[in-house]
Amino acid sequence: MTRLLPAGAGDAAARPDFYPTTVRPGIGFTALSTDGNGRRGRITTAHGSVETPAFMPVGTQATVKAMTAEAVAATGAEIVLANAYHLMLRPGSERIAKLGGLHQFMNWSKSILTDSGGFQVMSLATLREVAENGVVFKSHLDGSRHELTPERSMAVQEQLGVDIAMALDECVRYPASEEDVRRAMRFTIAWAERARAAFPLLPGRGVFGIIQGGVDMTLRTECANAVTAIPFDGFALGGLAVGEGHEAMIAVVEHTTPLLPAAKPRYLMGVGKPEDIVAAVACGIDMFDCVLPTRSGRTNQAFTRRGEVNLRNARHADDPRPLDPDCGCPTCHGYARAYLHHLAKAEEMLGGILLTWHNVHYYQELMNGLRGAIVAGTLADFRAGFAEQRARGDLAPL
Amino acid sequence: MTRLLPAGAGDAAARPDFYPTTVRPGIGFTALSTDGNGRRGRITTAHGSVETPAFMPVGTQATVKAMTAEAVAATGAEIVLANAYHLMLRPGSERIAKLGGLHQFMNWSKSILTDSGGFQVMSLATLREVAENGVVFKSHLDGSRHELTPERSMAVQEQLGVDIAMALDECVRYPASEEDVRRAMRFTIAWAERARAAFPLLPGRGVFGIIQGGVDMTLRTECANAVTAIPFDGFALGGLAVGEGHEAMIAVVEHTTPLLPAAKPRYLMGVGKPEDIVAAVACGIDMFDCVLPTRSGRTNQAFTRRGEVNLRNARHADDPRPLDPDCGCPTCHGYARAYLHHLAKAEEMLGGILLTWHNVHYYQELMNGLRGAIVAGTLADFRAGFAEQRARGDLAPL
Repeated sequence: MTRLLPAGAGDAAARPDFYPTTVRPGIGFTALSTDGNGRRGRITTAHGSVETPAFMPVGTQATVKAMTAEAVAATGAEIVLANAYHLMLRPGSERIAKLGGLHQFMNWSKSILTDSGGFQVMSLATLREVAENGVVFKSHLDGSRHELTPERSMAVQEQLGVDIAMALDECVRYPASEEDVRRAMRFTIAWAERARAAFPLLPGRGVFGIIQGGVDMTLRTECANAVTAIPFDGFALGGLAVGEGHEAMIAVVEHTTPLLPAAKPRYLMGVGKPEDIVAAVACGIDMFDCVLPTRSGRTNQAFTRRGEVNLRNARHADDPRPLDPDCGCPTCHGYARAYLHHLAKAEEMLGGILLTWHNVHYYQELMNGLRGAIVAGTLADFRAGFAEQRARGDLAPL
Repeated sequence: MTRLLPAGAGDAAARPDFYPTTVRPGIGFTALSTDGNGRRGRITTAHGSVETPAFMPVGTQATVKAMTAEAVAATGAEIVLANAYHLMLRPGSERIAKLGGLHQFMNWSKSILTDSGGFQVMSLATLREVAENGVVFKSHLDGSRHELTPERSMAVQEQLGVDIAMALDECVRYPASEEDVRRAMRFTIAWAERARAAFPLLPGRGVFGIIQGGVDMTLRTECANAVTAIPFDGFALGGLAVGEGHEAMIAVVEHTTPLLPAAKPRYLMGVGKPEDIVAAVACGIDMFDCVLPTRSGRTNQAFTRRGEVNLRNARHADDPRPLDPDCGCPTCHGYARAYLHHLAKAEEMLGGILLTWHNVHYYQELMNGLRGAIVAGTLADFRAGFAEQRARGDLAPL
């Protein structure tokens, strides 16, 4: 079995030397404005500030797919998500530590949050055995056996040098039996305590606990009460956006968010579609991540104010207009729908590059709009306008 | 059979309205300096100037693969090559004309040269029948039948609105019988006259004739004498880099270049490797195009001063150094070999994006170095230093 950590990786003496020492331990969070349950805040980490509500583009394998780090920054993103499970298997967290940490490795100077690996063990690994101590699984890459414990996941994330680490949790597939959901919740709580104890107090770095419990409100309450009793830097809702649908998801968010401390950031993991984000922000969620803008970009789907647009559709073949005339991204500034359609038909990489850039830009602009609406106290109007624009549908053909 | 042109496409009255009227007909060329047979010049077109010797990145389907137009411009490229054969089949030259021309379509404001389609009809199309009038072939995309005559190729390129059009030629595969080479040369000469007659005098636009003749110096002489008698804006050597090897290619270039008028630009089509370009510049060639920098970038191959580097090689896995510490491209500025190796192993698009950018930048820097050496009269020293650096091989592992 591969040992993922060098001996002493949790010791301060063995800590990679890229950790700064001039910032106070943990991350900062300030709620600046509220509008209903929605809130506008600011997270501060060792790598700067993150205006919230924030969307984190997904950089699973230390790259936001099809974008340079410079392009990601140009969209306004202040934090990206990477994945501890993927990076510990390839290229290895020790290797990244020796190369100066994940920020330097992927040329990203702003904040990074890593998922702990709990979700990927559920969705990608084979032959996983979950026990009180942790998870034993086979790598999806080469079948090699690995053990992931709460302590090991924390140490991997510490080696990566991320700003926000996530406690190891157990995710269950949806739908799942009440017994499975309950067991996953219990492991998640027990592992959360061990994760917090294992992750050292580091300047400008923090660790978030995760609330599981499926769509069972009683379990969500029980989990929230237990996990929020642990001194985490923030709290996440996990186990959603796995097939339960918008209504069920938002019901869990509405139920659980008030159980989380107002003084800490709240993160809805793996969410989501623009309409999911808008609804969850109104519930008081501060952080999001989702593969949709990047994955859709590579399959010729664009997000616009007027809904989703499929660039392979022949209606765009002669259309000289940009995807969205009001969008300020480089794709909408320089390229017509007809060209994006041509790239899609010709299966040219530039199609995925331009649409990913646009989609990530769209998500950042959506968050910017939500932040502005909360400050102005017009979140309800923003939501109505958002729904109305989408209901109109795409531009009429010329 | 699909008719590719609307009636009257060759008439001035039917000309797309994106043609400027303030520039004199044809393109300009000035030889600024010489060093031996090598020369430093400047081409002027409707879309600006092109410092020569120049390398044209290949944008076959109206995109330099894996690069935004902004990135291509950032490498210093002042002209790109696109392909009339590909674009007339998809998305169609009429469509591009209606969308404002190829420059606007692909968001490229500098010069564009299009290959006429002769090479692609040889390499891609099926069931081609070459006759005095032109070529009938089946599309490699959908098997549809098309006719390409010298006149039609010119009209397609005029619809695209390119700065430099290429006369339709017949390419033969290498090796070929003397009979085939001779017939191809005769068709190429006959078609050249018709192409020149068909391409109107347009402000800042020009048309180049192509010299064929394989590796037979007698045929090259015959073809050069015939084609240079036609008032083209420039002359190209075609039918090379098709398998004949560096020595045979340079022998043809050395033989043929002096037969071309000094007052017009000379273009070596489809060439080549860095060492091919350096040798051909010393023979007096002014323009090049090749898929190598872009294609290699997508297969994890990088060009550096010290030769080619395969980023999939495990020797790079822990290497914190850039590809080339003396390179000023964004890839070398921001990303380590270890990261590029990781992207290659993980098959991430960003690997192809970053290596393509680097490779195109490398080619532009090579041309910049050649231009500087000619002006300084140190081309022989440059060639020696170029060969010496490459002979040293890649950086030693750490």
